[in-house]
Amino acid sequence: MINVVFLGFGNVNSHLFDALYKRKEVAVKQVFNRNYIKLISPYENIPFTDDVSKIEDADVYIIGIPDDAISAFSESMPFQNRLVVHTSGGVAMDALSNKNRGGIFYPLQTFSKQRKVDFKNIPICIEAENSKDLKLLRSLGETISGNVVEISSEKRAKLHLAAVFVNNFVNHLYQIGSEILDKESLPFDLLKPLILETASKIETLSPNEAQTGPAKRNDIKTIEKHLHLLDDSEYVKFYELFTEALKKV
Amino acid sequence: MINVVFLGFGNVNSHLFDALYKRKEVAVKQVFNRNYIKLISPYENIPFTDDVSKIEDADVYIIGIPDDAISAFSESMPFQNRLVVHTSGGVAMDALSNKNRGGIFYPLQTFSKQRKVDFKNIPICIEAENSKDLKLLRSLGETISGNVVEISSEKRAKLHLAAVFVNNFVNHLYQIGSEILDKESLPFDLLKPLILETASKIETLSPNEAQTGPAKRNDIKTIEKHLHLLDDSEYVKFYELFTEALKKV
Repeated sequence: MINVVFLGFGNVNSHLFDALYKRKEVAVKQVFNRNYIKLISPYENIPFTDDVSKIEDADVYIIGIPDDAISAFSESMPFQNRLVVHTSGGVAMDALSNKNRGGIFYPLQTFSKQRKVDFKNIPICIEAENSKDLKLLRSLGETISGNVVEISSEKRAKLHLAAVFVNNFVNHLYQIGSEILDKESLPFDLLKPLILETASKIETLSPNEAQTGPAKRNDIKTIEKHLHLLDDSEYVKFYELFTEALKKV
Repeated sequence: MINVVFLGFGNVNSHLFDALYKRKEVAVKQVFNRNYIKLISPYENIPFTDDVSKIEDADVYIIGIPDDAISAFSESMPFQNRLVVHTSGGVAMDALSNKNRGGIFYPLQTFSKQRKVDFKNIPICIEAENSKDLKLLRSLGETISGNVVEISSEKRAKLHLAAVFVNNFVNHLYQIGSEILDKESLPFDLLKPLILETASKIETLSPNEAQTGPAKRNDIKTIEKHLHLLDDSEYVKFYELFTEALKKV
């Protein structure tokens, strides 16, 4: 049995909590959050505290709080030499206070409050200061995911950077698509099958093999027509930047 | 029974052929292509010609050739007053020669030779010069898709533009993500669950609701770290452009 305490209860930790709680190999001992949170059914019996001094014993503490608060918060723990991990893609392991044993438990996925996710295929990137802790984090990760990988803080930073491109930036292109359609009173639903197929394609094709479109085939006439349709809007910069890059591929 | 002749046999037409051939309401009378194509099993009995003068009678002719060739090619047809449609997102209906009745049969999807697609949910955008032809195109579309919509050439041009953002440009961001990982010898597979979830999210959330990440929360420290990691590469421009736009959202 792996005893876990959650420190913070934002998007990542509440989804991790939800997944780990169900595993018989895991016992969620307690949830700490700076602000009071009412845990609702079926979690109403999990002890909650908003008092750092009342954090209970556990095999692993999982910090899920804003990146820039991780360091000071880990320093404020009233205990020593326990395994304290954080869940952030962009923060190095050595940002954690060295009064405890540090580690990383980073699920590479986008989490929204309103949406359940299935952890089975989500890569969980782990790192630890010693091999025993690494083994424990692997065991913990494998209770919910078939894809637990050891990755250094340095490589994880690059992975997180790549994730920003394929998640946040991609989603912003969806936003632009939706705005272009809005202006024509066309429903965004029209683009959804294309969006899903674009993402599904790269399951079997490389992005390079999957690429199509006017920029790739250097179709100057269509490109000029599109720039004309964009009519000096803020999207012109995006169109030009991508088109230039795609012509070179 | 709707008799169809395919004019050209690139990505769009070969996928349309594959889908329409199977419908009992449709008879594929012939495939024309400028260069010889060997139709393989189970299509080996479909007549093929590379001679414009031998194109057979049909209820509808579906042109699937490069955008800039559509106009002249439609003018070269050796018959008159028949229904001739094209499948391009970016070309107006009036680009078709007026010696025949023009129309549009535009499946809004990304097609690659190597990948089968399921037409059931694909929007098929139709347009015609008269209501009888429009009705025929609707019937034809509904044999393969539950999502046949009438859209004017003007709105279709904007739809095609939006499609370039959510397909070609999105795929280029996948390419950048894959290159960032390559340099670290990390497998692109790590990003695939995130890519798929990012696309799936907008089935139920708007792109605005779905957005997360350092730029949205104006996390200057992470943004600066990322720019540092990008190290003056060609990706910096992309990072800066998206980040500036996301800060404003």
